[in-house]
Amino acid sequence: MPGSSIGRLFRVENFGESHGPAIGCVVDGCPAGLMLSEADIQTELDRRRPGTSRFVTQRREPDAVEILSGVYEGRTTGTPIALLIRNTDQKSRDYSAIAEKFRPGHADFGYWTKFGIRDPRGGGRSSARLTAPTVAAGAIAKKLLREAFGTEIRACVTQVGPILFPVENWDAREKNPFFAATENGDLIQEAEALLDGLRREGDSIGSKIHLEITSLPAGLGEPIYDRFDARLAAALMGLNAVKAVSIGEGFNVCSMRGSENNDEMTSDGFATNHAGGILGGITTGAPVVADIAVKPTPSIRKTQMTRDIHGNFVEVSTTGRHDPCVGLRASPIAEALAALTAADFLLLARASGERLTKGGSAL
Amino acid sequence: MPGSSIGRLFRVENFGESHGPAIGCVVDGCPAGLMLSEADIQTELDRRRPGTSRFVTQRREPDAVEILSGVYEGRTTGTPIALLIRNTDQKSRDYSAIAEKFRPGHADFGYWTKFGIRDPRGGGRSSARLTAPTVAAGAIAKKLLREAFGTEIRACVTQVGPILFPVENWDAREKNPFFAATENGDLIQEAEALLDGLRREGDSIGSKIHLEITSLPAGLGEPIYDRFDARLAAALMGLNAVKAVSIGEGFNVCSMRGSENNDEMTSDGFATNHAGGILGGITTGAPVVADIAVKPTPSIRKTQMTRDIHGNFVEVSTTGRHDPCVGLRASPIAEALAALTAADFLLLARASGERLTKGGSAL
Amino acid sequence: MPGSSIGRLFRVENFGESHGPAIGCVVDGCPAGLMLSEADIQTELDRRRPGTSRFVTQRREPDAVEILSGVYEGRTTGTPIALLIRNTDQKSRDYSAIAEKFRPGHADFGYWTKFGIRDPRGGGRSSARLTAPTVAAGAIAKKLLREAFGTEIRACVTQVGPILFPVENWDAREKNPFFAATENGDLIQEAEALLDGLRREGDSIGSKIHLEITSLPAGLGEPIYDRFDARLAAALMGLNAVKAVSIGEGFNVCSMRGSENNDEMTSDGFATNHAGGILGGITTGAPVVADIAVKPTPSIRKTQMTRDIHGNFVEVSTTGRHDPCVGLRASPIAEALAALTAADFLLLARASGERLTKGGSAL
Amino acid sequence: MPGSSIGRLFRVENFGESHGPAIGCVVDGCPAGLMLSEADIQTELDRRRPGTSRFVTQRREPDAVEILSGVYEGRTTGTPIALLIRNTDQKSRDYSAIAEKFRPGHADFGYWTKFGIRDPRGGGRSSARLTAPTVAAGAIAKKLLREAFGTEIRACVTQVGPILFPVENWDAREKNPFFAATENGDLIQEAEALLDGLRREGDSIGSKIHLEITSLPAGLGEPIYDRFDARLAAALMGLNAVKAVSIGEGFNVCSMRGSENNDEMTSDGFATNHAGGILGGITTGAPVVADIAVKPTPSIRKTQMTRDIHGNFVEVSTTGRHDPCVGLRASPIAEALAALTAADFLLLARASGERLTKGGSAL
Repeated sequence: MPGSSIGRLFRVENFGESHGPAIGCVVDGCPAGLMLSEADIQTELDRRRPGTSRFVTQRREPDAVEILSGVYEGRTTGTPIALLIRNTDQKSRDYSAIAEKFRPGHADFGYWTKFGIRDPRGGGRSSARLTAPTVAAGAIAKKLLREAFGTEIRACVTQVGPILFPVENWDAREKNPFFAATENGDLIQEAEALLDGLRREGDSIGSKIHLEITSLPAGLGEPIYDRFDARLAAALMGLNAVKAVSIGEGFNVCSMRGSENNDEMTSDGFATNHAGGILGGITTGAPVVADIAVKPTPSIRKTQMTRDIHGNFVEVSTTGRHDPCVGLRASPIAEALAALTAADFLLLARASGERLTKGGSAL
Repeated sequence: MPGSSIGRLFRVENFGESHGPAIGCVVDGCPAGLMLSEADIQTELDRRRPGTSRFVTQRREPDAVEILSGVYEGRTTGTPIALLIRNTDQKSRDYSAIAEKFRPGHADFGYWTKFGIRDPRGGGRSSARLTAPTVAAGAIAKKLLREAFGTEIRACVTQVGPILFPVENWDAREKNPFFAATENGDLIQEAEALLDGLRREGDSIGSKIHLEITSLPAGLGEPIYDRFDARLAAALMGLNAVKAVSIGEGFNVCSMRGSENNDEMTSDGFATNHAGGILGGITTGAPVVADIAVKPTPSIRKTQMTRDIHGNFVEVSTTGRHDPCVGLRASPIAEALAALTAADFLLLARASGERLTKGGSAL
Repeated sequence: MPGSSIGRLFRVENFGESHGPAIGCVVDGCPAGLMLSEADIQTELDRRRPGTSRFVTQRREPDAVEILSGVYEGRTTGTPIALLIRNTDQKSRDYSAIAEKFRPGHADFGYWTKFGIRDPRGGGRSSARLTAPTVAAGAIAKKLLREAFGTEIRACVTQVGPILFPVENWDAREKNPFFAATENGDLIQEAEALLDGLRREGDSIGSKIHLEITSLPAGLGEPIYDRFDARLAAALMGLNAVKAVSIGEGFNVCSMRGSENNDEMTSDGFATNHAGGILGGITTGAPVVADIAVKPTPSIRKTQMTRDIHGNFVEVSTTGRHDPCVGLRASPIAEALAALTAADFLLLARASGERLTKGGSAL
Repeated sequence: MPGSSIGRLFRVENFGESHGPAIGCVVDGCPAGLMLSEADIQTELDRRRPGTSRFVTQRREPDAVEILSGVYEGRTTGTPIALLIRNTDQKSRDYSAIAEKFRPGHADFGYWTKFGIRDPRGGGRSSARLTAPTVAAGAIAKKLLREAFGTEIRACVTQVGPILFPVENWDAREKNPFFAATENGDLIQEAEALLDGLRREGDSIGSKIHLEITSLPAGLGEPIYDRFDARLAAALMGLNAVKAVSIGEGFNVCSMRGSENNDEMTSDGFATNHAGGILGGITTGAPVVADIAVKPTPSIRKTQMTRDIHGNFVEVSTTGRHDPCVGLRASPIAEALAALTAADFLLLARASGERLTKGGSAL
């Protein structure tokens, strides 16, 4: 059923399978007049591209995006923006070994139960490859937010298995293979050793991503149901392999007192930001802060027991190219999903003439 | 903007303010032919009602629900079911002391920035009272799911501040003031002492809720964006005061290996349920398991600093009736939100003739 | 399925049955800050009320509307506005004579096929009574449009059977029993004689309604699918008993030439308005002009043959209170539906920062 | 704003501009398991293709459709079906002569007011070329309906200016240049003479289309707002150049009596079909019958007065390739729009387990 779109007024319709002819999306609702080029989108796509280090999938394809519509003479026209990415590196492998098995940790069983038919090649529709259109669409949303409010959206890896990366320097993210916001060489080496070991063992590991949105206006989100936190949680939980989403203090609040957790107000906005920039479902103008848990890559070389579509018990192990830590390239995708969520609420707020203010400066 | 509805095919439109004439909702999309009485709904409403112990709000009103439409001779007719709950206990208090102040931990500042107008009486639209229509609608969804698949949805409190309640006996929940699924008298006494102390100090405390959905069919949810986990996260994060949502192992996955976290399949379904019943966004037929973090009640008697709508620094403290631990009555609301999410996906699956199976038994 | 709402950003959810406890609606999406009282809504409701002349249904109930939410101190708050109208005049008649028969010209057969259950009392959900919530919601949309742009929306009856009423004087509408915009006494007498005769014969007659929207901005509507004309056609065709909708020249265009039908532009906007204010799906700033055909009331005293739910051939005739010409009170409803359509597009246009101009004056 | 989609459960997102790189659509919601090939779609596209007679646009491009996703081994997979049609015949003409002028009868003025930017090449987004994706998506809907219920959807031209074509033989449609369902050679010659004359004069003419849907189940559509007639009217009115839509007797009902217009029931369904297969917004199982008015092509060679974006009065005439009677190729598009509407309602009905019956045979 038509569940392949995200957003209400800034809406993205995603299509494609990992090894079909192409993947892509249609962005419907982007206002007219935004300067937009393929390069704007390609820059973001390149940030998530597999093959950028030895710890991520070795699939090497350019993921070159083509804008098919909605842009004229370098500006958006207010009509749907279709983005196309051809699949060029689908090896004609033999998928018959796994086509009928339900791989542990994968959508296979639910998928087969649901549809009764499944494109098994490279994960088909369930492949992480389908996050590329999300990133492409998110690039447009990011640009819209940046131009409207100077909004910046940044995510980084803060944990890989037992190793914690502090958030010290956003610029460091693309200088290490972990998208970590730190220049601490010891931690990076420790993580490299961990991942090299996992690769040898044919195993994988989980990770955590930290996300921040700064300079987002106060006043976005509805009091009930369609809250900013609810939509953000949906977007982020919908990212492949994510099993938890928290805002601000997250699960810490379970043991906090009201007097600790409440954020008092000052002349600049808020004295603290335990709330992570959202109160009662509505943005406060303070940075929106979220964390997500990414499970270990389910495709592992180690042998596991499962069943096939005929009800037989069978062994399964994955032999293709896979990431030992799928979270390593999740940050740009998390940024894109946050951007899509924020852009959508921005348009909703404009619709009713709501009084947007930056960073709590309405006072 | 129209964000006060939840669901796509089983849709609930929520209306009302805490101290206006009435609150309620319209349930649009419930199939025809379901036996339904006001008693079915009242039972669920009574489970969340304030005033059931000394630890929850002392507001005492019956929250009597009236079915205005969509039911004829005891059965649903397939047309919208309007549910009305009159507000009968709105004390004509003087709200001028807080009407212009932005209470820390509350939606006040974002709300004022957004709308420029606000009903301050009893929290207005942001009051937890507005969860009553959600519970009422959820009662219908629960009944629909139970009759279709024997689905059961249960939630309980598993943490209050530093105290952890094990999930041992669901029937114990309504025998203690904490909605805890345990008969461990020591833990209950410890928690009572904690809350009595908080009440004296004028402070509050956070809590954690555990949720389980059993006998839900495999195959619900879409692979991208409109995933079961994404919609469930949105529903639960949208519950007042919730700051985190996790599925299955949740944040534990950050440090787990693939070989640990993957659930192997057996003749009964799955050998383990680290996934919490959802893989790749689609239900597996195993129990759906989620946890949510509920922040401490923001309304506290302790004095805090904030600002008012004129930009002045001011002191604020709350004097009305409030819960020291707002999570204590969140369980029935979480159940309702989960039921609404599941019922919606059930109808979506039916639309496309998808092959629903109970508990993985499709094999 | 949830089809009882209209609008996307200015959305109305309609509920109720003719002889249930109440009818009403929830208006979700009305911007904050609009002055609004029950009197504003009641005025419009009174214009459609049955019992205002001897030619319309003799049911006499006040249709008193109650605002349950979304208004505080006389202004809208940006939250859902719930409107309630209690049913007070449901005579406890015996409906068994028709409960199992499919009345010709009514929804009965399709309804029974669809739902398998039906509230037969007074037409149940299919009763024209359910247009009252539409009119109530439309009153809010009208006020919003009037305050934003001075938009006026007016409809009148232009045909009753063979009698044509010219559109000469809008103020005359409420001075004759036909809602005709003429003071031509001969035509009025002729129509009275026609209707008196039909009443004696137990028969009914069709009619035509003319609608105009003036001072509506240019630029509303999308080029494809979600066009202003498409949404307006849906709204008006959705009015009970309507069988045709035309814009501007309507069916006349079938025999017109391009050189005749095209509207040249002048300094004031357009030299002519064959297009009825909409070109390519987008408003031009010229008045939006539409006509609708309303079929004769299907409930007639004359005996007709039909079937019942058991498959028997049976006679049926209607004995309750009914209008011989159901179109006589359709004008305020058509106005309300046009207002809801226009308000919705207005908010959509605001969302994307579109450049609205009144009456083509953008030049 | 995101208005470029049609349908709720069987949803089509349309993208592209007449002279951009490509046009196309994404069909989201088609159930899994339908046999589908590019040939199935191409067949329908070829029926609307320009260049099939001397009376329609001379643009000659193959309109070859490519399925990018959602089909695996010849069957739909339940995931979005993206359809791509490359634009291959965009002559690099000079559009500067009309780029700044508001052409009479076109969307230009409203479009410019709305977006402030416009792709003028070949009509851009407003071009009739954008009906090709609608036809492509409609081909899938048609196949789905045919396989589920044997539903057939057929449209033909019944009027060109003063010439009326009777509906005598559906097979005759593709044997004459007018898509008329008649083999009456005299009428065809008369129409040819008319169009040849118009072409010499540089003028154009309006037309009328007749549509029938047979073997559609009873019970589709909701009683209020989301009625089958309302959605069908929206779909058809949204077709370029359509100015009126009628169901069954249409505007004839204005002068009919209830005793004439009501359809009595027989053992086969209905004795007559004045209602055009829809009563109270719900299908009856009788054929759905609609007529639409298509205005004369607004692009004419004759000189007209208009304004440009600078406010100057200017002359304008169209010199490119255009159809003298745009309605001649509207029939396959009307069929597609009807198919999309019906498929959407079919899925909605399935969602709630409604009791669909063919042709009134529920009895």
